[in-house]
Amino acid sequence: MSEVYALRRTRLRECCNAGGSAAALVTRPANVRYLAGPAPEGAVLLLGPAEDFLVCAAPAEDRSGQHRPDEALRMHTAPGTGGDPAVEAAGLAAAGGADSLAVEEHHLTVTRHRALGSAAPGLRLADVGGAVEQLRVVKDEEEISCLRIGAEIADQALGELLESILVGRTERHLALELERRLVDHGADGPAFATSVATGPNAGRPGHHPTDRRVEEGDFLSVCLGAAYRGYRCEIGRTFVIGTAPADWQIDLYNLVFAAQRAGRESLVPGAACRDVDRAARQVLDGAGYAAALPALTGHGVGLEIDEDPQLTPGTMGKLDACVPVTVEPGVHLPGRGGVRIDDTLVVRPEADGGPELLTITTKELLAL
Amino acid sequence: MSEVYALRRTRLRECCNAGGSAAALVTRPANVRYLAGPAPEGAVLLLGPAEDFLVCAAPAEDRSGQHRPDEALRMHTAPGTGGDPAVEAAGLAAAGGADSLAVEEHHLTVTRHRALGSAAPGLRLADVGGAVEQLRVVKDEEEISCLRIGAEIADQALGELLESILVGRTERHLALELERRLVDHGADGPAFATSVATGPNAGRPGHHPTDRRVEEGDFLSVCLGAAYRGYRCEIGRTFVIGTAPADWQIDLYNLVFAAQRAGRESLVPGAACRDVDRAARQVLDGAGYAAALPALTGHGVGLEIDEDPQLTPGTMGKLDACVPVTVEPGVHLPGRGGVRIDDTLVVRPEADGGPELLTITTKELLAL
Repeated sequence: MSEVYALRRTRLRECCNAGGSAAALVTRPANVRYLAGPAPEGAVLLLGPAEDFLVCAAPAEDRSGQHRPDEALRMHTAPGTGGDPAVEAAGLAAAGGADSLAVEEHHLTVTRHRALGSAAPGLRLADVGGAVEQLRVVKDEEEISCLRIGAEIADQALGELLESILVGRTERHLALELERRLVDHGADGPAFATSVATGPNAGRPGHHPTDRRVEEGDFLSVCLGAAYRGYRCEIGRTFVIGTAPADWQIDLYNLVFAAQRAGRESLVPGAACRDVDRAARQVLDGAGYAAALPALTGHGVGLEIDEDPQLTPGTMGKLDACVPVTVEPGVHLPGRGGVRIDDTLVVRPEADGGPELLTITTKELLAL
Repeated sequence: MSEVYALRRTRLRECCNAGGSAAALVTRPANVRYLAGPAPEGAVLLLGPAEDFLVCAAPAEDRSGQHRPDEALRMHTAPGTGGDPAVEAAGLAAAGGADSLAVEEHHLTVTRHRALGSAAPGLRLADVGGAVEQLRVVKDEEEISCLRIGAEIADQALGELLESILVGRTERHLALELERRLVDHGADGPAFATSVATGPNAGRPGHHPTDRRVEEGDFLSVCLGAAYRGYRCEIGRTFVIGTAPADWQIDLYNLVFAAQRAGRESLVPGAACRDVDRAARQVLDGAGYAAALPALTGHGVGLEIDEDPQLTPGTMGKLDACVPVTVEPGVHLPGRGGVRIDDTLVVRPEADGGPELLTITTKELLAL
């Protein structure tokens, strides 16, 4: 693994050097993890002009193997208590002879940025922008393998829930039950707060579970994911409760299913992100649901559950191979509920069989 | 409730006016909630020169009562998708005739701060600092009542766990079980990630649960809390597993108990924060554990689980009445485990009976 991290740091260093900075300070936690491996909370990474440092907040206690950052990195601990590792790192950069330090202005607060400037007054602070986030977009097979295992875990947790009795249980309890099952099957934990939505709540994006109980005739929509070795995937499905779905439920489900399939089928290397969004969106638009649609049809996943690329009408840029994304259109009708279908897939060339579906739970409309 | 929010906003406005700004922009979520009530995710609060606005990211869908911000506030929605409500609010402030806007520099990123400046170039951006956090330190009885209910819920969840069989179960499962019970008893959810630590992990502050199973002879330390109507409390206890604690376990437990009691007993209005820390710390120092101690002995709680005041050797300032704090000294011995005892209490004058203990689970050493 050490070579992987070193190679990623080399790519970032080249990018910073091209921008005129001999040193870079990475503070956003997912970016630190990407470049240095699992690091203690609050750790920051300094790509120095000569040497790289992982700077930690407090003396690293024995963490029983919970954190094993890249051993090729030199570790440095901010002295005293309450010291900011980023400020310490700025001092190290200046002491190492750097005259310019590229920082993550989209992550540092104004207050913290000013403290960096005060700690190393000779250092010019530049902006590294979203350089690390851009490196993270295309995944290697090791990363995809973590996502694949996470997706299997989520499929298992969801499958077990479907075998249990649902009527009468609350959204909150079903969500907690799913999270327990994720851990049972080997997840680090949930990839994000599990969403369970029943009846009029069903299909609402990002719904926070309530005390509403599952009733006969409800739509039930579920969105969950597992974190596995830091990587986060996502699956969403909608079911009906009871033996006979109503006609409007079947029609709405088929429509969202058609939109989601159109989105999935448009995932090819080189496709414009907004064209993927449009493929799914126009199915729903055409049926008169333009106003009921959320802002995005999908997004990248990886060390964070919401990464680039964004699949929206306004996104510039194209999809590359080996980019994992969600495809998750849905329709929510206020007062009635709705449908949401969400998969995680990896963009693959047609020669390799086309998009790789990671979340394989059936998308037939199940009546439970 | 509306008057409470309006009064809080008036106090902040006075504070900003004294600092020379006619308008203030509050972006930190807990601060927005304190001043405006439960608001949609991403919402920001503008205290305008004439009128106050709650500015939201997306058109507010029907949220089924999940979010009921103060109805006295004017709502405003950022147009289009992906628009930053803070940028929208800066535009509103400028349009309302403000020439200076106080912002939360400790919360806004450099990138976002710059976007505010660009959106309203005539507006001078000042810093409101931690003004809202300072207003939040002393709680009213309504807030304390939410913390009290949260503490009762945590006590119930913990009590039930103690009645179950523990040997052979993993830290992760015990933590999930506790979180399920918190929700069973009416919590919004856990106040923070529940920590369960066994054997050599016991007593380690902020331990993330692992797959280690509870064994005969272990110390077992648990730290959990409930969120109730947004307010977060904390309780931590340490137990021994098996019928006969070893002598070193009894000695270590008694020592930490004595330190925790010393901390609790020093909670009086007017006490210096660092004196409370010292009261607990010197008991452990005196027994030779100076190096094994964490940086802080306790902290405030409220809408966030870690608020001012901090009980550390370096904290300036005194405790006021009606300030809820944790008192949570502990000792962790690498390889052997340790003890941590954590209560949430409200500072009260002696005439009112002294500090009010919210977390009432016994602190006797239980052998389970």
